[in-house]
Amino acid sequence: MREVAVIGVGMNKWGELWEKSIRDVFVEAALMAIEDAGVDHIDSMYVGCMTSGLFVGQEHLGSLMADYLGQTPIPATRVESACASGGAAFRLGFMEVAAGMSDIVLVGGVEKMTDVGGGDATFALSTAADQEYECYQGVTFPGLYAMMAHRHMHEYGTTREQLAQVAVKNHHNGSMNPRAQYPFKVTVEQVLNSVKVADPLRILDCSPITDGAAAAILCPVDMARNLSKKPLVQVIGSGQATDTIALHSREDMTWLGATAKAAEIAYGMAGVGPEDLDVVEVHDCFTIAEICVTEALGLVSKGQGGPAVESGLTALDGKIPVNASGGLKSKGHPVGATGVAQIVELTEQLRGQAGDRQVKDARIALAQNMGGTGGSTAVHILKRIS
Amino acid sequence: MREVAVIGVGMNKWGELWEKSIRDVFVEAALMAIEDAGVDHIDSMYVGCMTSGLFVGQEHLGSLMADYLGQTPIPATRVESACASGGAAFRLGFMEVAAGMSDIVLVGGVEKMTDVGGGDATFALSTAADQEYECYQGVTFPGLYAMMAHRHMHEYGTTREQLAQVAVKNHHNGSMNPRAQYPFKVTVEQVLNSVKVADPLRILDCSPITDGAAAAILCPVDMARNLSKKPLVQVIGSGQATDTIALHSREDMTWLGATAKAAEIAYGMAGVGPEDLDVVEVHDCFTIAEICVTEALGLVSKGQGGPAVESGLTALDGKIPVNASGGLKSKGHPVGATGVAQIVELTEQLRGQAGDRQVKDARIALAQNMGGTGGSTAVHILKRIS
Repeated sequence: MREVAVIGVGMNKWGELWEKSIRDVFVEAALMAIEDAGVDHIDSMYVGCMTSGLFVGQEHLGSLMADYLGQTPIPATRVESACASGGAAFRLGFMEVAAGMSDIVLVGGVEKMTDVGGGDATFALSTAADQEYECYQGVTFPGLYAMMAHRHMHEYGTTREQLAQVAVKNHHNGSMNPRAQYPFKVTVEQVLNSVKVADPLRILDCSPITDGAAAAILCPVDMARNLSKKPLVQVIGSGQATDTIALHSREDMTWLGATAKAAEIAYGMAGVGPEDLDVVEVHDCFTIAEICVTEALGLVSKGQGGPAVESGLTALDGKIPVNASGGLKSKGHPVGATGVAQIVELTEQLRGQAGDRQVKDARIALAQNMGGTGGSTAVHILKRIS
Repeated sequence: MREVAVIGVGMNKWGELWEKSIRDVFVEAALMAIEDAGVDHIDSMYVGCMTSGLFVGQEHLGSLMADYLGQTPIPATRVESACASGGAAFRLGFMEVAAGMSDIVLVGGVEKMTDVGGGDATFALSTAADQEYECYQGVTFPGLYAMMAHRHMHEYGTTREQLAQVAVKNHHNGSMNPRAQYPFKVTVEQVLNSVKVADPLRILDCSPITDGAAAAILCPVDMARNLSKKPLVQVIGSGQATDTIALHSREDMTWLGATAKAAEIAYGMAGVGPEDLDVVEVHDCFTIAEICVTEALGLVSKGQGGPAVESGLTALDGKIPVNASGGLKSKGHPVGATGVAQIVELTEQLRGQAGDRQVKDARIALAQNMGGTGGSTAVHILKRIS
């Protein structure tokens, strides 16, 4: 297999983009990535998207986006793994270049979520859970993560304040990210006093409904050395795994088995461990998610995700900065785009282009992107090599 | 890249499977393929599915199906390219084995279309077209293909009877396929007198609404020689391409550019041409589609698709048998499963297991799977090598 580099990234300002259709949002980010890479063509593309059928009545995004990007007749495929759609798409782009099937591959992610009413968005998102055995009982995603939170608090003494501190940290980071949907800071008190969604989770524990896209361009490392004068970022590890789709089927509902497995594979391929990471983006769809993910990735031991955020271990100036971008919490969470946006952030961090939220001397980075309550996860490890 | 073999295939009886959910339908076919391959595990899987979100309110099929197949924590990804979802998924499975990322990969396709009313199914299928520029004007899929048919008749003198003869041929073949949804024969008169859907297309020109799944197991050829005692089938060509999603954007609405391009790539990789093919499965979602596809694949010259079926060239005992399985027309068309079912049929044809519809001494076969009105296409070429 060939060595693979990320040579271009792009991402638009996220938010409620009422004036733009799904094709506009995607093409904007894709063109930014193409310009950043400085390539004059692409050979193949992937589009990560969770549920454009339910959100905007449009499937067949491969054809649509290749068309509107002016890139037909290249092969273009839409990839779905719920909220891990972007990470799964990135893995396929990596595989295609590694295999030698194509040289220059664009991986984009997109979701347009604000063209529907609130009730419909909740239904659309619930299709990431087990429709027959979970949703039919009336449970929603905040409800599922609320159960994980309660259990984590019961088992490990995680506090309501520690959950809030995840939101405080990520909004602090996001306030320095000009592309974030909610680039404002919040306090622990504001989180604790915000409206309750599903006990113990409040609205400021939840990632928002977002329109947005992100894109990355991949090519072989050898080609990248000639194509780009920017610091070179290599994909050194890729892991993907599944777990039971339903939370109730798991032995331990606070343990994200797919994340642990995907990380194990990615660490093995990369030849690094959690202690080698300089900056990490994780899937904080809810504050409790970040706490569970830091444990499953081995950044901290089981049950220590709460104290980790409280002590500042995962802060921007901490030992292991987590979600320097603001995470899903502040940056926004257009579900299909999130996994690719993590790659955008980390590529910029490794290049030293992250502005006020730059993690100093970052050389090795990890992205963890999760679907549902952890039924699927993609983990990628990036390294600056020049 | 490694050489890749198909070592197992499975497909259930297609139809209106009211008593089975999408997970049951998929797992049934997947278990058949695993049993046929004789493997005791799989390393990775892909699920081709067009629009389970709209049909059954369920996305995240990778996690769901890996879970219900008892295969977690293996990576599992859902792939969508409208009605070419199965073909696109097969290509990714091929790529993963060829790249050396995994050894044993299951590629399945599934669609459960009869849990919704007729009106909703028409909307769900229309998401394969350009929602903003085609569907918003009120056009449906039969309407789009009807325009292609009218234009083909105008340009090349294709007759209404020739369209009907596609249905007659495919139902004849399908009457020998025990897994077909509609395994009955039809006459030209019956087609011409069936209810009109969108002029000139009548109901017997259209593929049906179907529940069903299909699956195939891929592994390296070297490993296949040890694993399986069945005749060995190798994937010798894979091509995928896109065209404009909207029919009105094309220079010639009777020319399937993505099919021609995908075929060109697949022929090039395989080192064969249309003249070398012994048996071909094509995407006859409507009778006119088969006529246009036989032209784009180079089986006949442009405009000669009508006379080809009339003369018996594409009949089971003709020079180039097309849709020996009964095609989408008779076998059924659970959209995400169709591309994988073509691989099932061709693998059985190449192994000599196709019963009454066996094409004698078939050694090289081609599958063409198309999304929308041809906005995306996957073409695969298989060869019996032992």
